[in-house]
Amino acid sequence: MRDLKYNKLLSGLTLSTKIREELRVDLKECLLRNSTVRPPCLTMVLVGDNYASKMYVDFKHKTCQQLGISSRLVSLDSSVSQEELLVVIDKLNQDDSVDGILVQLPLPDHIDKQVVLSRIDPRKDVDGLSPYNQGLLMAASSEAVVPCTPLGIVELIRQVEPNLEGKLVAVVGRSLLVGKSVRLLLENYNCTTIGIHSKTKNPQTLCQMADIVVVAVGHAGIIDKNWIKKDAIVIDVGINKDNSSHTVGDVNRDSVYEQTINLSPVPGGVGPMTITMLMKNTIKLWKKRFKIKTKYC
Amino acid sequence: MRDLKYNKLLSGLTLSTKIREELRVDLKECLLRNSTVRPPCLTMVLVGDNYASKMYVDFKHKTCQQLGISSRLVSLDSSVSQEELLVVIDKLNQDDSVDGILVQLPLPDHIDKQVVLSRIDPRKDVDGLSPYNQGLLMAASSEAVVPCTPLGIVELIRQVEPNLEGKLVAVVGRSLLVGKSVRLLLENYNCTTIGIHSKTKNPQTLCQMADIVVVAVGHAGIIDKNWIKKDAIVIDVGINKDNSSHTVGDVNRDSVYEQTINLSPVPGGVGPMTITMLMKNTIKLWKKRFKIKTKYC
Repeated sequence: MRDLKYNKLLSGLTLSTKIREELRVDLKECLLRNSTVRPPCLTMVLVGDNYASKMYVDFKHKTCQQLGISSRLVSLDSSVSQEELLVVIDKLNQDDSVDGILVQLPLPDHIDKQVVLSRIDPRKDVDGLSPYNQGLLMAASSEAVVPCTPLGIVELIRQVEPNLEGKLVAVVGRSLLVGKSVRLLLENYNCTTIGIHSKTKNPQTLCQMADIVVVAVGHAGIIDKNWIKKDAIVIDVGINKDNSSHTVGDVNRDSVYEQTINLSPVPGGVGPMTITMLMKNTIKLWKKRFKIKTKYC
Repeated sequence: MRDLKYNKLLSGLTLSTKIREELRVDLKECLLRNSTVRPPCLTMVLVGDNYASKMYVDFKHKTCQQLGISSRLVSLDSSVSQEELLVVIDKLNQDDSVDGILVQLPLPDHIDKQVVLSRIDPRKDVDGLSPYNQGLLMAASSEAVVPCTPLGIVELIRQVEPNLEGKLVAVVGRSLLVGKSVRLLLENYNCTTIGIHSKTKNPQTLCQMADIVVVAVGHAGIIDKNWIKKDAIVIDVGINKDNSSHTVGDVNRDSVYEQTINLSPVPGGVGPMTITMLMKNTIKLWKKRFKIKTKYC
Protein backbone atom coordinates (compact mmCIF):
# COMPACT_ATOMS: atom_id res chain seq x y z
CA MET A 1 0.00 0.00 0.00
CA ARG A 2 2.93 2.36 0.48
CA ASP A 3 2.92 3.29 -3.20
CA LEU A 4 -0.44 4.99 -2.72
CA LYS A 5 1.18 7.45 -0.37
CA TYR A 6 3.38 9.31 -2.80
CA ASN A 7 2.31 12.54 -4.43
CA LYS A 8 0.96 11.50 -7.82
CA LEU A 9 2.15 14.77 -9.34
CA LEU A 10 5.65 13.31 -9.11
CA SER A 11 4.82 10.33 -11.30
CA GLY A 12 7.17 10.50 -14.26
CA LEU A 13 5.00 8.00 -16.08
CA THR A 14 1.88 10.19 -15.93
CA LEU A 15 3.69 13.40 -16.78
CA SER A 16 5.65 11.69 -19.57
CA THR A 17 2.50 10.35 -21.16
CA LYS A 18 1.05 13.87 -21.23
CA ILE A 19 4.18 15.54 -22.61
CA ARG A 20 4.82 12.80 -25.19
CA GLU A 21 1.31 13.20 -26.54
CA GLU A 22 1.81 16.97 -26.79
CA LEU A 23 5.10 16.42 -28.60
CA ARG A 24 3.53 13.88 -30.99
CA VAL A 25 0.68 16.23 -31.92
CA ASP A 26 3.01 19.21 -32.27
CA LEU A 27 5.41 17.29 -34.50
CA LYS A 28 2.58 16.00 -36.67
CA GLU A 29 1.29 19.55 -37.17
CA CYS A 30 4.79 20.80 -37.96
CA LEU A 31 5.22 18.16 -40.64
CA LEU A 32 1.80 18.92 -42.13
CA ARG A 33 2.62 22.61 -42.35
CA ASN A 34 6.13 21.98 -43.70
CA SER A 35 5.52 19.24 -46.21
CA THR A 36 8.97 19.40 -47.79
CA VAL A 37 10.76 18.76 -44.48
CA ARG A 38 11.63 15.21 -43.43
CA PRO A 39 10.87 14.03 -39.84
CA PRO A 40 13.49 14.50 -37.09
CA CYS A 41 16.17 11.83 -36.87
CA LEU A 42 17.94 10.69 -33.70
CA THR A 43 21.02 8.52 -34.12
CA MET A 44 22.24 6.52 -31.14
CA VAL A 45 25.74 5.11 -30.85
CA LEU A 46 26.05 2.01 -28.70
CA VAL A 47 29.47 0.55 -27.88
CA GLY A 48 29.56 -3.03 -26.56
CA ASP A 49 26.67 -5.14 -25.32
CA ASN A 50 26.01 -3.93 -21.79
CA TYR A 51 22.56 -5.25 -20.95
CA ALA A 52 21.24 -2.06 -19.33
CA SER A 53 22.57 0.12 -22.15
CA LYS A 54 20.86 -2.03 -24.76
CA MET A 55 17.63 -1.82 -22.80
CA TYR A 56 17.83 1.99 -22.61
CA VAL A 57 18.56 2.27 -26.33
CA ASP A 58 15.57 0.06 -27.00
CA PHE A 59 13.30 2.26 -24.82
CA LYS A 60 14.48 5.34 -26.68
CA HIS A 61 13.98 3.71 -30.06
CA LYS A 62 10.40 2.71 -29.21
CA THR A 63 9.56 6.17 -27.88
CA CYS A 64 10.89 7.74 -31.08
CA GLN A 65 8.58 5.47 -33.06
CA GLN A 66 5.56 6.46 -30.96
CA LEU A 67 6.22 10.15 -31.58
CA GLY A 68 7.03 10.02 -35.27
CA ILE A 69 10.76 10.58 -34.83
CA SER A 70 13.03 8.52 -37.04
CA SER A 71 15.73 6.71 -35.05
CA ARG A 72 18.87 4.85 -36.04
CA LEU A 73 21.36 2.78 -34.12
CA VAL A 74 25.07 2.53 -34.80
CA SER A 75 26.20 -0.54 -32.86
CA LEU A 76 29.92 -0.98 -32.35
CA ASP A 77 31.93 -3.80 -30.84
CA SER A 78 33.33 -3.16 -27.34
CA SER A 79 36.82 -3.46 -28.81
CA VAL A 80 36.35 -0.42 -31.04
CA SER A 81 39.21 2.05 -30.65
CA GLN A 82 38.67 5.66 -29.58
CA GLU A 83 39.90 6.82 -32.98
CA GLU A 84 37.41 4.60 -34.80
CA LEU A 85 34.60 5.90 -32.60
CA LEU A 86 35.63 9.49 -33.34
CA VAL A 87 35.48 8.74 -37.07
CA VAL A 88 31.90 7.52 -36.58
CA ILE A 89 31.03 10.74 -34.72
CA ASP A 90 32.63 12.87 -37.45
CA LYS A 91 30.55 11.14 -40.12
CA LEU A 92 27.34 11.66 -38.15
CA ASN A 93 28.29 15.32 -37.61
CA GLN A 94 28.47 15.73 -41.37
CA ASP A 95 25.41 13.64 -42.19
CA ASP A 96 22.59 16.01 -43.15
CA SER A 97 19.96 13.38 -42.41
CA VAL A 98 20.89 13.31 -38.70
CA ASP A 99 19.56 15.93 -36.24
CA GLY A 100 20.62 14.47 -32.91
CA ILE A 101 23.58 12.27 -31.92
CA LEU A 102 23.46 10.34 -28.66
CA VAL A 103 26.41 8.31 -27.43
CA GLN A 104 25.02 5.81 -24.93
CA LEU A 105 27.03 5.89 -21.69
CA PRO A 106 28.96 4.28 -20.11
CA LEU A 107 31.73 3.73 -22.66
CA PRO A 108 34.40 1.03 -22.24
CA ASP A 109 37.34 1.98 -20.04
CA HIS A 110 39.80 2.38 -22.92
CA ILE A 111 37.74 5.25 -24.36
CA ASP A 112 37.89 8.77 -22.91
CA LYS A 113 34.26 9.84 -22.55
CA GLN A 114 35.20 13.51 -22.45
CA VAL A 115 37.04 13.35 -25.78
CA VAL A 116 34.11 11.59 -27.44
CA LEU A 117 31.44 13.94 -26.08
CA SER A 118 33.56 16.96 -27.07
CA ARG A 119 33.61 15.71 -30.65
CA ILE A 120 29.83 15.85 -31.14
CA ASP A 121 28.76 18.92 -33.10
CA PRO A 122 27.04 21.13 -30.45
CA ARG A 123 24.14 21.61 -32.88
CA LYS A 124 23.52 17.84 -32.82
CA ASP A 125 24.44 17.28 -29.16
CA VAL A 126 20.99 16.10 -28.10
CA ASP A 127 22.19 15.06 -24.64
CA GLY A 128 23.76 18.49 -23.98
CA LEU A 129 26.93 16.91 -22.62
CA SER A 130 29.52 18.51 -24.91
CA PRO A 131 31.61 21.18 -23.16
CA TYR A 132 30.22 23.87 -25.44
CA ASN A 133 26.63 23.17 -24.43
CA GLN A 134 27.57 22.83 -20.77
CA GLY A 135 29.21 26.26 -21.03
CA LEU A 136 26.04 27.71 -22.55
CA LEU A 137 24.01 26.21 -19.71
CA MET A 138 26.38 27.88 -17.26
CA ALA A 139 25.87 31.18 -19.08
CA ALA A 140 22.08 30.64 -18.84
CA SER A 141 21.96 30.97 -22.62
CA SER A 142 18.67 30.18 -24.36
CA GLU A 143 20.81 28.52 -27.04
CA ALA A 144 21.98 25.77 -24.64
CA VAL A 145 20.93 22.17 -25.22
CA VAL A 146 20.25 21.18 -21.61
CA PRO A 147 20.92 17.55 -20.54
CA CYS A 148 17.79 15.40 -20.48
CA THR A 149 17.82 14.17 -16.87
CA PRO A 150 18.09 17.68 -15.33
CA LEU A 151 15.34 18.90 -17.67
CA GLY A 152 13.12 16.02 -16.57
CA ILE A 153 13.86 16.70 -12.89
CA VAL A 154 12.85 20.35 -13.20
CA GLU A 155 9.62 19.43 -15.02
CA LEU A 156 8.73 17.02 -12.21
CA ILE A 157 9.48 19.53 -9.44
CA ARG A 158 7.37 22.17 -11.15
CA GLN A 159 4.34 19.90 -10.99
CA VAL A 160 4.40 20.24 -7.20
CA GLU A 161 5.96 23.70 -6.92
CA PRO A 162 5.44 25.89 -10.00
CA ASN A 163 7.30 28.84 -8.49
CA LEU A 164 10.92 27.86 -7.89
CA GLU A 165 12.23 31.33 -7.11
CA GLY A 166 14.14 31.47 -3.84
CA LYS A 167 13.75 27.78 -3.08
CA LEU A 168 16.74 26.21 -1.31
CA VAL A 169 17.83 23.08 -3.19
CA ALA A 170 20.33 20.53 -1.93
CA VAL A 171 21.72 18.37 -4.73
CA VAL A 172 23.42 15.22 -3.46
CA GLY A 173 25.97 13.98 -6.00
CA ARG A 174 28.12 16.02 -8.35
CA SER A 175 28.21 14.17 -11.64
CA LEU A 176 28.34 16.23 -14.80
CA LEU A 177 25.38 14.30 -16.18
CA VAL A 178 23.07 15.14 -13.27
CA GLY A 179 24.39 16.85 -10.15
CA LYS A 180 26.28 19.80 -11.60
CA SER A 181 23.91 20.32 -14.53
CA VAL A 182 20.74 20.31 -12.44
CA ARG A 183 22.23 22.84 -10.03
CA LEU A 184 22.98 25.26 -12.85
CA LEU A 185 19.55 24.72 -14.39
CA LEU A 186 17.74 25.27 -11.07
CA GLU A 187 19.81 28.38 -10.47
CA ASN A 188 18.53 29.70 -13.79
CA TYR A 189 15.07 29.38 -12.20
CA ASN A 190 16.36 31.53 -9.30
CA CYS A 191 16.76 28.68 -6.82
CA THR A 192 19.59 28.77 -4.29
CA THR A 193 21.64 25.59 -4.63
CA ILE A 194 24.00 23.64 -2.38
CA GLY A 195 26.23 20.94 -3.90
CA ILE A 196 26.63 18.01 -1.52
CA HIS A 197 29.15 15.27 -2.19
CA SER A 198 31.28 12.62 -0.52
CA LYS A 199 33.66 15.19 1.01
CA THR A 200 30.91 17.44 2.41
CA LYS A 201 30.94 17.87 6.19
CA ASN A 202 27.57 17.58 7.95
CA PRO A 203 25.67 16.75 4.75
CA GLN A 204 22.56 15.78 6.73
CA THR A 205 22.36 19.20 8.37
CA LEU A 206 22.58 20.95 5.00
CA CYS A 207 20.01 18.64 3.41
CA GLN A 208 17.58 19.14 6.30
CA MET A 209 17.46 22.86 5.51
CA ALA A 210 16.45 22.32 1.88
CA ASP A 211 12.99 22.86 0.37
CA ILE A 212 13.96 20.52 -2.45
CA VAL A 213 16.45 17.63 -2.36
CA VAL A 214 17.72 15.98 -5.54
CA VAL A 215 19.60 12.73 -4.95
CA ALA A 216 21.85 11.32 -7.68
CA VAL A 217 24.49 9.21 -6.00
CA GLY A 218 23.94 5.64 -7.21
CA HIS A 219 23.77 4.05 -3.76
CA ALA A 220 20.55 2.33 -2.66
CA GLY A 221 18.78 3.87 0.33
CA ILE A 222 21.53 6.33 1.24
CA ILE A 223 19.02 9.09 2.13
CA ASP A 224 16.55 8.53 4.97
CA LYS A 225 14.15 10.72 6.95
CA ASN A 226 16.96 12.26 8.98
CA TRP A 227 18.10 14.11 5.86
CA ILE A 228 14.70 15.51 4.91
CA LYS A 229 12.71 18.51 6.14
CA LYS A 230 8.98 18.05 6.71
CA ASP A 231 7.07 18.24 3.38
CA ALA A 232 10.22 18.85 1.32
CA ILE A 233 10.20 17.77 -2.34
CA VAL A 234 12.57 14.85 -2.88
CA ILE A 235 13.63 13.78 -6.37
CA ASP A 236 15.28 10.36 -6.47
CA VAL A 237 17.50 9.95 -9.54
CA GLY A 238 19.15 6.70 -8.42
CA ILE A 239 18.49 3.38 -10.16
CA ASN A 240 19.87 0.47 -8.14
CA LYS A 241 19.05 -3.18 -7.47
CA ASP A 242 18.26 -4.22 -3.91
CA ASN A 243 19.03 -7.65 -2.39
CA SER A 244 15.88 -9.11 -4.00
CA SER A 245 16.83 -7.68 -7.43
CA HIS A 246 14.10 -5.07 -7.26
CA THR A 247 14.81 -1.69 -8.83
CA VAL A 248 15.18 0.90 -6.07
CA GLY A 249 16.38 4.49 -5.86
CA ASP A 250 18.94 6.24 -3.67
CA VAL A 251 16.23 7.14 -1.16
CA ASN A 252 14.91 4.90 1.62
CA ARG A 253 11.26 5.38 0.75
CA ASP A 254 9.57 3.98 3.85
CA SER A 255 11.69 6.20 6.04
CA VAL A 256 11.37 9.38 3.96
CA TYR A 257 7.59 8.99 3.66
CA GLU A 258 7.44 9.76 7.38
CA GLN A 259 8.60 13.28 6.53
CA THR A 260 7.02 13.94 3.14
CA ILE A 261 4.81 12.43 0.45
CA ASN A 262 6.55 14.62 -2.15
CA LEU A 263 8.94 11.89 -3.23
CA SER A 264 9.39 10.86 -6.86
CA PRO A 265 9.06 7.07 -7.32
CA VAL A 266 11.73 4.68 -8.60
CA PRO A 267 10.99 3.21 -11.08
CA GLY A 268 8.54 5.50 -12.84
CA GLY A 269 9.90 8.87 -11.74
CA VAL A 270 12.93 10.51 -13.32
CA GLY A 271 13.61 7.59 -15.72
CA PRO A 272 10.69 8.09 -18.12
CA MET A 273 11.11 11.88 -17.88
CA THR A 274 14.69 11.58 -19.13
CA ILE A 275 13.54 9.75 -22.26
CA THR A 276 10.74 12.26 -22.78
CA MET A 277 13.18 15.16 -22.59
CA LEU A 278 15.43 13.37 -25.08
CA MET A 279 12.50 13.41 -27.50
CA LYS A 280 11.89 17.09 -26.76
CA ASN A 281 15.57 17.93 -27.36
CA THR A 282 15.60 15.97 -30.63
CA ILE A 283 12.58 17.88 -31.91
CA LYS A 284 14.09 21.15 -30.68
CA LEU A 285 17.33 20.58 -32.60
CA TRP A 286 15.38 19.58 -35.71
CA LYS A 287 13.17 22.68 -35.48
CA LYS A 288 16.17 24.91 -35.03
CA ARG A 289 17.86 23.40 -38.05
CA PHE A 290 14.85 23.83 -40.30
CA LYS A 291 13.86 27.14 -38.67
CA ILE A 292 10.45 25.80 -37.68
CA LYS A 293 8.62 27.68 -34.95
CA THR A 294 5.52 26.56 -33.05
CA LYS A 295 3.82 27.67 -29.90
CA TYR A 296 4.75 24.42 -28.17
CA CYS A 297 8.52 24.35 -28.06
CA MET B 1 45.52 51.65 11.75
CA ARG B 2 42.79 49.25 10.65
CA ASP B 3 44.81 48.11 7.63
CA LEU B 4 47.33 46.54 9.98
CA LYS B 5 44.68 44.19 11.26
CA TYR B 6 44.13 42.13 8.15
CA ASN B 7 45.84 38.80 7.62
CA LYS B 8 48.87 39.62 5.49
CA LEU B 9 48.62 36.23 3.81
CA LEU B 10 45.62 37.62 1.96
CA SER B 11 47.58 40.46 0.38
CA GLY B 12 47.23 40.03 -3.34
CA LEU B 13 50.12 42.43 -3.85
CA THR B 14 52.58 40.33 -1.85
CA LEU B 15 51.47 37.03 -3.34
CA SER B 16 51.40 38.49 -6.85
CA THR B 17 54.93 39.77 -6.54
CA LYS B 18 56.11 36.29 -5.55
CA ILE B 19 54.21 34.46 -8.32
CA ARG B 20 55.16 36.98 -11.00
CA GLU B 21 58.82 36.57 -10.16
CA GLU B 22 58.45 32.78 -10.38
CA LEU B 23 56.71 33.13 -13.75
CA ARG B 24 59.40 35.50 -15.03
CA VAL B 25 62.22 33.16 -14.08
CA ASP B 26 60.39 30.12 -15.43
CA LEU B 27 59.67 31.83 -18.75
CA LYS B 28 63.26 33.01 -19.07
CA GLU B 29 64.51 29.46 -18.54
CA CYS B 30 62.00 28.08 -21.04
CA LEU B 31 63.16 30.52 -23.69
CA LEU B 32 66.82 29.72 -22.99
CA ARG B 33 66.17 26.00 -23.36
CA ASN B 34 63.99 26.45 -26.46
CA SER B 35 65.98 29.02 -28.40
CA THR B 36 63.93 28.70 -31.60
CA VAL B 37 60.66 29.54 -29.89
CA ARG B 38 59.43 33.15 -29.74
CA PRO B 39 58.13 34.59 -26.42
CA PRO B 40 54.43 34.27 -25.55
CA CYS B 41 52.13 36.89 -27.03
CA LEU B 42 48.94 38.23 -25.45
CA THR B 43 46.65 40.31 -27.64
CA MET B 44 44.04 42.49 -25.98
CA VAL B 45 41.00 43.84 -27.77
CA LEU B 46 39.61 47.08 -26.39
CA VAL B 47 36.35 48.53 -27.68
CA GLY B 48 35.62 52.18 -26.89
CA ASP B 49 37.40 54.45 -24.43
CA ASN B 50 35.99 53.50 -21.02
CA TYR B 51 38.46 54.94 -18.52
CA ALA B 52 38.59 51.91 -16.21
CA SER B 53 38.96 49.49 -19.14
CA LYS B 54 41.87 51.49 -20.53
CA MET B 55 43.49 51.49 -17.10
CA TYR B 56 43.13 47.69 -16.78
CA VAL B 57 44.55 47.13 -20.27
CA ASP B 58 47.46 49.35 -19.34
CA PHE B 59 48.12 47.37 -16.11
CA LYS B 60 48.09 44.13 -18.08
CA HIS B 61 50.39 45.51 -20.74
CA LYS B 62 52.92 46.66 -18.13
CA THR B 63 52.82 43.33 -16.31
CA CYS B 64 53.45 41.49 -19.58
CA GLN B 65 56.51 43.66 -20.13
CA GLN B 66 57.87 42.89 -16.66
CA LEU B 67 57.56 39.15 -17.26
CA GLY B 68 58.93 38.99 -20.80
CA ILE B 69 55.56 38.41 -22.45
CA SER B 70 54.92 40.26 -25.67
CA SER B 71 51.62 42.14 -25.63
CA ARG B 72 49.58 43.86 -28.31
CA LEU B 73 46.50 46.02 -28.25
CA VAL B 74 43.78 46.16 -30.88
CA SER B 75 41.84 49.32 -30.11
CA LEU B 76 38.46 49.73 -31.77
CA ASP B 77 36.02 52.60 -31.82
CA SER B 78 32.91 52.18 -29.63
CA SER B 79 30.81 52.32 -32.80
CA VAL B 80 32.38 49.13 -34.19
CA SER B 81 29.71 46.62 -35.26
CA GLN B 82 29.49 43.14 -33.82
CA GLU B 83 30.31 41.69 -37.23
CA GLU B 84 33.43 43.82 -37.53
CA LEU B 85 34.54 42.75 -34.06
CA LEU B 86 34.00 39.09 -34.99
CA VAL B 87 36.20 39.58 -38.07
CA VAL B 88 38.94 40.90 -35.77
CA ILE B 89 38.57 37.84 -33.51
CA ASP B 90 38.68 35.49 -36.52
CA LYS B 91 41.92 37.08 -37.70
CA LEU B 92 43.51 36.75 -34.26
CA ASN B 93 42.33 33.12 -34.06
CA GLN B 94 44.25 32.44 -37.27
CA ASP B 95 47.29 34.53 -36.42
CA ASP B 96 50.12 32.15 -35.48
CA SER B 97 51.98 34.86 -33.62
CA VAL B 98 49.16 35.19 -31.04
CA ASP B 99 48.87 32.79 -28.06
CA GLY B 100 46.17 34.47 -26.00
CA ILE B 101 43.22 36.67 -26.96
CA LEU B 102 41.57 38.83 -24.32
CA VAL B 103 38.47 40.88 -25.07
CA GLN B 104 38.32 43.59 -22.42
CA LEU B 105 34.88 43.73 -20.83
CA PRO B 106 32.42 45.39 -20.68
CA LEU B 107 31.52 45.71 -24.37
CA PRO B 108 29.11 48.38 -25.68
CA ASP B 109 25.41 47.51 -25.39
CA HIS B 110 24.93 46.85 -29.11
CA ILE B 111 27.40 43.94 -28.98
CA ASP B 112 26.38 40.53 -27.59
CA LYS B 113 29.21 39.57 -25.23
CA GLN B 114 28.28 35.89 -25.40
CA VAL B 115 28.57 35.77 -29.19
CA VAL B 116 31.97 37.46 -29.10
CA LEU B 117 33.40 35.27 -26.32
CA SER B 118 32.11 32.14 -28.10
CA ARG B 119 34.06 33.14 -31.19
CA ILE B 120 37.48 33.03 -29.50
CA ASP B 121 39.39 29.85 -30.32
CA PRO B 122 39.31 27.88 -27.03
CA ARG B 123 43.06 27.28 -27.41
CA LYS B 124 43.62 31.05 -27.28
CA ASP B 125 40.86 31.86 -24.80
CA VAL B 126 43.19 33.19 -22.09
CA ASP B 127 40.31 34.46 -19.94
CA GLY B 128 38.55 31.05 -20.01
CA LEU B 129 35.19 32.65 -20.75
CA SER B 130 34.25 30.84 -23.97
CA PRO B 131 31.47 28.26 -23.48
CA TYR B 132 33.84 25.44 -24.41
CA ASN B 133 36.29 26.28 -21.63
CA GLN B 134 33.50 26.87 -19.14
CA GLY B 135 32.20 23.41 -20.00
CA LEU B 136 35.65 21.92 -19.44
CA LEU B 137 35.82 23.65 -16.04
CA MET B 138 32.46 22.11 -15.20
CA ALA B 139 33.82 18.71 -16.20
CA ALA B 140 36.87 19.33 -13.95
CA SER B 141 39.03 18.74 -17.03
CA SER B 142 42.74 19.46 -16.71
CA GLU B 143 42.47 20.89 -20.23
CA ALA B 144 40.25 23.77 -19.06
CA VAL B 145 41.51 27.33 -19.21
CA VAL B 146 40.12 28.60 -15.91
CA PRO B 147 39.06 32.28 -15.65
CA CYS B 148 41.68 34.47 -14.03
CA THR B 149 39.71 35.97 -11.12
CA PRO B 150 38.55 32.58 -9.75
CA LEU B 151 42.11 31.26 -10.09
CA GLY B 152 43.41 34.25 -8.16
CA ILE B 153 40.76 33.83 -5.46
CA VAL B 154 41.70 30.18 -4.91
CA GLU B 155 45.41 31.03 -4.71
CA LEU B 156 44.67 33.65 -2.05
CA ILE B 157 42.47 31.33 0.03
CA ARG B 158 45.11 28.61 -0.06
CA GLN B 159 47.61 30.95 1.58
CA VAL B 160 45.47 30.87 4.73
CA GLU B 161 43.92 27.41 4.34
CA PRO B 162 46.00 25.02 2.22
CA ASN B 163 43.54 22.15 2.66
CA LEU B 164 40.22 23.10 1.10
CA GLU B 165 38.62 19.66 1.26
CA GLY B 166 35.21 19.73 2.93
CA LYS B 167 35.20 23.47 3.53
CA LEU B 168 31.79 25.09 3.25
CA VAL B 169 31.98 28.06 0.87
CA ALA B 170 29.26 30.65 0.35
CA VAL B 171 29.68 32.57 -2.88
CA VAL B 172 27.64 35.77 -2.98
CA GLY B 173 26.91 36.77 -6.59
CA ARG B 174 26.37 34.52 -9.58
CA SER B 175 28.15 36.16 -12.50
CA LEU B 176 29.72 33.87 -15.05
CA LEU B 177 32.99 35.75 -14.70
CA VAL B 178 33.31 35.17 -10.95
CA GLY B 179 30.45 33.64 -8.97
CA LYS B 180 29.62 30.57 -11.01
CA SER B 181 33.19 29.90 -12.10
CA VAL B 182 34.69 30.12 -8.62
CA ARG B 183 32.07 27.72 -7.25
CA LEU B 184 32.94 25.11 -9.85
CA LEU B 185 36.66 25.61 -9.28
CA LEU B 186 36.33 25.32 -5.49
CA GLU B 187 34.21 22.21 -5.90
CA ASN B 188 37.08 20.70 -7.88
CA TYR B 189 39.08 21.21 -4.67
CA ASN B 190 36.37 19.25 -2.83
CA CYS B 191 34.74 22.24 -1.18
CA THR B 192 30.99 22.29 -0.61
CA THR B 193 29.53 25.38 -2.25
CA ILE B 194 26.38 27.45 -1.82
CA GLY B 195 25.41 29.98 -4.48
CA ILE B 196 23.83 33.05 -2.94
CA HIS B 197 22.13 35.70 -5.08
CA SER B 198 19.49 38.41 -5.05
CA LYS B 199 16.62 35.89 -4.91
CA THR B 200 18.09 33.81 -2.07
CA LYS B 201 15.98 33.64 1.09
CA ASN B 202 17.83 34.13 4.40
CA PRO B 203 21.18 34.77 2.71
CA GLN B 204 22.73 35.93 6.00
CA THR B 205 21.91 32.64 7.71
CA LEU B 206 23.55 30.65 4.91
CA CYS B 207 26.62 32.89 4.85
CA GLN B 208 27.05 32.65 8.61
CA MET B 209 27.51 28.90 8.29
CA ALA B 210 30.37 29.20 5.80
CA ASP B 211 34.06 28.64 6.48
CA ILE B 212 34.86 30.75 3.43
CA VAL B 213 32.80 33.58 1.94
CA VAL B 214 33.52 34.97 -1.53
CA VAL B 215 31.71 38.23 -2.31
CA ALA B 216 31.34 39.39 -5.91
CA VAL B 217 28.27 41.56 -6.12
CA GLY B 218 29.46 45.05 -7.07
CA HIS B 219 27.74 46.87 -4.21
CA ALA B 220 29.85 48.74 -1.63
CA GLY B 221 29.66 47.46 1.92
CA ILE B 222 26.81 45.00 1.36
CA ILE B 223 28.34 42.37 3.67
CA ASP B 224 28.87 43.17 7.35
CA LYS B 225 29.74 41.17 10.47
CA ASN B 226 26.24 39.71 10.71
CA TRP B 227 26.96 37.62 7.62
CA ILE B 228 30.29 36.24 8.81
CA LYS B 229 31.22 33.38 11.13
CA LYS B 230 34.04 33.95 13.63
CA ASP B 231 37.44 33.57 11.92
CA ALA B 232 35.94 32.75 8.51
CA ILE B 233 37.99 33.57 5.41
CA VAL B 234 36.38 36.41 3.44
CA ILE B 235 37.44 37.21 -0.12
CA ASP B 236 36.21 40.56 -1.36
CA VAL B 237 36.03 40.71 -5.16
CA GLY B 238 34.11 44.00 -5.37
CA ILE B 239 35.68 47.19 -6.68
CA ASN B 240 33.49 50.21 -5.97
CA LYS B 241 33.89 53.92 -5.21
CA ASP B 242 32.61 55.25 -1.88
CA ASN B 243 31.23 58.75 -1.32
CA SER B 244 34.76 60.14 -1.00
CA SER B 245 35.82 58.47 -4.28
CA HIS B 246 37.95 55.92 -2.45
CA THR B 247 38.14 52.44 -3.90
CA VAL B 248 36.26 50.03 -1.62
CA GLY B 249 35.05 46.46 -1.86
CA ASP B 250 31.68 44.80 -1.32
CA VAL B 251 32.55 44.12 2.32
CA ASN B 252 32.15 46.58 5.19
CA ARG B 253 35.67 46.12 6.53
CA ASP B 254 35.41 47.77 9.91
CA SER B 255 32.38 45.67 10.75
CA VAL B 256 33.71 42.34 9.40
CA TYR B 257 37.05 42.80 11.21
CA GLU B 258 35.12 42.30 14.44
CA GLN B 259 34.54 38.71 13.34
CA THR B 260 37.72 37.83 11.45
CA ILE B 261 41.07 39.19 10.32
CA ASN B 262 41.01 36.79 7.36
CA LEU B 263 39.68 39.39 4.94
CA SER B 264 41.30 40.16 1.60
CA PRO B 265 41.93 43.89 1.15
CA VAL B 266 40.46 46.14 -1.56
CA PRO B 267 42.46 47.44 -3.31
CA GLY B 268 45.43 45.09 -3.26
CA GLY B 269 43.61 41.76 -2.89
CA VAL B 270 41.92 39.96 -5.76
CA GLY B 271 42.72 42.71 -8.31
CA PRO B 272 46.48 42.08 -8.66
CA MET B 273 45.90 38.32 -8.43
CA THR B 274 43.62 38.46 -11.47
CA ILE B 275 46.33 40.09 -13.57
CA THR B 276 48.90 37.59 -12.28
CA MET B 277 46.69 34.66 -13.26
CA LEU B 278 46.23 36.23 -16.70
CA MET B 279 50.00 36.07 -17.08
CA LYS B 280 50.02 32.46 -15.90
CA ASN B 281 47.25 31.52 -18.35
CA THR B 282 49.07 33.24 -21.23
CA ILE B 283 52.25 31.30 -20.50
CA LYS B 284 50.23 28.09 -20.08
CA LEU B 285 48.59 28.46 -23.51
CA TRP B 286 51.96 29.27 -25.08
CA LYS B 287 53.61 26.24 -23.45
CA LYS B 288 50.78 23.99 -24.60
CA ARG B 289 51.09 25.25 -28.12
CA PHE B 290 54.81 24.69 -28.31
CA LYS B 291 54.66 21.55 -26.17
CA ILE B 292 57.01 23.01 -23.56
CA LYS B 293 56.98 21.37 -20.15
CA THR B 294 58.55 22.68 -16.95
CA LYS B 295 58.21 21.85 -13.32
CA TYR B 296 56.55 25.19 -12.62
CA CYS B 297 53.33 25.20 -14.60
